[in-house]
Amino acid sequence: MSQRRVKAELSEHKADTATKEGPLAIIAGGGTLPATLAEAALAKDRSVHVLGIRGEADERIERYPHTWLKWGEVGKLFSTLEDQGCRDLVIIGAVTRPDLANVRFDFGAIRNLPLLLSLGVGGDDHVLSSVVRFLEAKGYRVHGAGDVAPELLAAEGPLGAKTPSIDDRQDIETGFRVVAALGRLDIGQATVVVKGRVLAVEAAEGTDAMLARCGELRKGRRHRGPAGVLVKAPKPGQEERVDLPTIGPDTIERVAKAGLAGVAVAAGRVLIAERAAAIATADTHGLFLVGQMLPRDQDA
Amino acid sequence: MSQRRVKAELSEHKADTATKEGPLAIIAGGGTLPATLAEAALAKDRSVHVLGIRGEADERIERYPHTWLKWGEVGKLFSTLEDQGCRDLVIIGAVTRPDLANVRFDFGAIRNLPLLLSLGVGGDDHVLSSVVRFLEAKGYRVHGAGDVAPELLAAEGPLGAKTPSIDDRQDIETGFRVVAALGRLDIGQATVVVKGRVLAVEAAEGTDAMLARCGELRKGRRHRGPAGVLVKAPKPGQEERVDLPTIGPDTIERVAKAGLAGVAVAAGRVLIAERAAAIATADTHGLFLVGQMLPRDQDA
Repeated sequence: MSQRRVKAELSEHKADTATKEGPLAIIAGGGTLPATLAEAALAKDRSVHVLGIRGEADERIERYPHTWLKWGEVGKLFSTLEDQGCRDLVIIGAVTRPDLANVRFDFGAIRNLPLLLSLGVGGDDHVLSSVVRFLEAKGYRVHGAGDVAPELLAAEGPLGAKTPSIDDRQDIETGFRVVAALGRLDIGQATVVVKGRVLAVEAAEGTDAMLARCGELRKGRRHRGPAGVLVKAPKPGQEERVDLPTIGPDTIERVAKAGLAGVAVAAGRVLIAERAAAIATADTHGLFLVGQMLPRDQDA
Repeated sequence: MSQRRVKAELSEHKADTATKEGPLAIIAGGGTLPATLAEAALAKDRSVHVLGIRGEADERIERYPHTWLKWGEVGKLFSTLEDQGCRDLVIIGAVTRPDLANVRFDFGAIRNLPLLLSLGVGGDDHVLSSVVRFLEAKGYRVHGAGDVAPELLAAEGPLGAKTPSIDDRQDIETGFRVVAALGRLDIGQATVVVKGRVLAVEAAEGTDAMLARCGELRKGRRHRGPAGVLVKAPKPGQEERVDLPTIGPDTIERVAKAGLAGVAVAAGRVLIAERAAAIATADTHGLFLVGQMLPRDQDA
């Protein structure tokens, strides 16, 4: 789905919500973002109902009106949405990809079996866009977290005190090119480039594991000082409402441990969890943290 | 450099060697391939002189006429080649990328400083093609191991007892597409695809580390039986004379440990170390091992 269409739907949603009073449903995975989003919505006088995925979502969601769901409780998901009068959804937070063989499905899941079976194959983006299409087919409006709370997205330019050097800027350009190429194959959203060399590419292991590997690979070269960059950006054509790349203070800590010089993310298209703490962590370690506007954003 | 040009040079070389008697210089990194290549050359009545890189090459190269070199002994490399009357070179075997800060350069290296400095930046392919151009500029002919001993290259079709299933074939196709896209960015030569999903992509960490990661990522899903494929192929435009992807029995063992169903390599463009042992290992674990002719070979 194009950025344009997302924006069109959002304006429609804004028009709607003026007349419609159902709470915003937040389907919550792990990390701090679901709670941050709930706060942001409440600050804008939008009521919320958080649907926490057991084993994924943090207990702090219990501060808000909430329901816990297990993987496979598809029927309970829909009955909760109906009981709460929710028509608008945001899906946010980290989830592990569940092993479908260990998931117990409720009756609502059995009724939706063809979709669930289709989730077993393909890349992440295939799975997530199936979920969005499924929810839309049921009449729900799926929104991006950034549509509800744009302040969660990375701004353009240096976010902390440090700015990238000319060498860093070359690594950043290479990194964005690599991520775009990977994304076209639905592989990953991140890469590490050090002095023109692609040190690591993220696929299923996630950013944290990739950064740990980079630390190992750079052992013995650390005396030369920090070099290289972590680059994160959504895949081209990615379902950006439900699967935006995310960084936070932990990411910055791992970047420092890996001996890199900084982090570059696609401005407006990457979520920053605990923004103030993330920037403070970058400043403490002398790392740059920049948002870069990507060409295709100009189309949106 | 194009395949065509390599082949043209090779025929020239064949014409030359009929009249020219210098031994074939084998610049040897790690593993069994340098010794296998020396055997293959000797079996064809071509004398050899092995230049073993200290800390990289196996001691078994001492069975052949040889000289040990340390990283940085560029002057000694050229004096040895001259003393032995070598004009034809093969570079073969695994090397770690040396940390130039820890390398002690001899006078021959100092004289070639501009090239050596250029090795510090860029992807692997950039480095290796610089080395080849450098040696060629010095008047040496650089050959691929497969030009000297084609039997070291993967043949087309199933190499062992097992053949890939229809699902495996889809993963193989995806894998070759991914490797081609990665290669255009000078990233890596290998990927793991499981049921349509790109599980891992190799960059600087190498195939072994990538396979170890895949084993971790597939934990908890192993009860469903082996699935997925390791795909290896050279990068498009890669300097195939000095940096062909290589697999061997160890690779096959790691593929089995990762819970994959088999291995697919570009036929004629991937080296197989200890071929018989590699095939026997695949058969023991019930894995397929196939060589696939890639479209661009038809141009060569």
